[in-house]
Amino acid sequence: MFITLEGPEGSGKSTQLRQLTKRLLALGYPVVSTREPGGTPIGDQIRQVLMSLENKELHPRTEILLFLAARAQLVEQVIKPALRDGKIVLCDRYGDSTIAYQGYGHGLDLDQLRQMLNFATDHLKPDLTILMDLDVKTGLRRKKVEDEWNRLDAYEVAFHERVREGYHELARAEPERWRIVDAAQGIDTVQEELFQLILNALENNK
Amino acid sequence: MFITLEGPEGSGKSTQLRQLTKRLLALGYPVVSTREPGGTPIGDQIRQVLMSLENKELHPRTEILLFLAARAQLVEQVIKPALRDGKIVLCDRYGDSTIAYQGYGHGLDLDQLRQMLNFATDHLKPDLTILMDLDVKTGLRRKKVEDEWNRLDAYEVAFHERVREGYHELARAEPERWRIVDAAQGIDTVQEELFQLILNALENNK
Repeated sequence: MFITLEGPEGSGKSTQLRQLTKRLLALGYPVVSTREPGGTPIGDQIRQVLMSLENKELHPRTEILLFLAARAQLVEQVIKPALRDGKIVLCDRYGDSTIAYQGYGHGLDLDQLRQMLNFATDHLKPDLTILMDLDVKTGLRRKKVEDEWNRLDAYEVAFHERVREGYHELARAEPERWRIVDAAQGIDTVQEELFQLILNALENNK
Repeated sequence: MFITLEGPEGSGKSTQLRQLTKRLLALGYPVVSTREPGGTPIGDQIRQVLMSLENKELHPRTEILLFLAARAQLVEQVIKPALRDGKIVLCDRYGDSTIAYQGYGHGLDLDQLRQMLNFATDHLKPDLTILMDLDVKTGLRRKKVEDEWNRLDAYEVAFHERVREGYHELARAEPERWRIVDAAQGIDTVQEELFQLILNALENNK
């Protein structure tokens, strides 16, 4: 089973994912958790190019292709082998981030993005995707306080509004795959909701 | 005017390009020369990922996407601005390398590659492309002696045979864009042929 967490910076995906992984492992579930971009040595090198504050001239098309390159490597080197071994893969961001950020956010052609995404992922889609939904200003404020500033935070609020609306459109288009959690709630409440959603999915998948 | 050199490793593209650039500048032509992958600070970082001997697990799809990322950056940051300024751009490898190496060499779908290539280059095509044609064994032998060994040389001879045949098919499909030079000739003879081809093209373009 392949499960992804989506949502804006500051929604707490990484923290929640760490906790979820621990709890699922404690229950005996064979969990592999990973993150995008990165998750492999080659992906981490690509992540450095994407995140470096010095790369101010990074063009949006270059950015997309780098995200897709890191994802192609992650799919082949981590996700596919783990799924083949019967493991549960939890991933912090995946293809829906490309559609939400580069498609809805930057306004690039959605069909073309989907085609390139299918190439990068070899058509591998998640079984369950949870959107950690958060209003834009809360997300950006949390991110600035809690985490180091990086190049991706420099985009304007309007961009993040488009991204959020994009996520909601994706969720409406595939309700069987998506669940939405209100990430403005307390961290423990969010954790419980995520945990129950995933346990239910794992039970239904048996 | 946008001119690209294509051909296998060991065909002498880089050496010839340096000489061509010098001679054209000496005649007063405003020349910008560059190379792929690389040619920008971001492209050079991507080049390092592609060329590193340690990245043995680099998947062919990751490889393509990294080449395309470096190219997108080169087009936006170097080639388009130079052409806009009325300059002549000479480039060591460009989109035809993707079709020849990843398409014909690795057997990936040509139409899909062309679509992604159009995305990466924003549909920018060369006005003139010169194939430095060389039989595979001579090319690989020259490369090993003259240049540092890198990951890309590890592919087998049959792969390079497919690449060479791919280049010839591309040249047959667009004869008005392509010229072929026999790169097995002496370095000075090759230089003269290249120089005359380019001068003719620049004259006809006036």
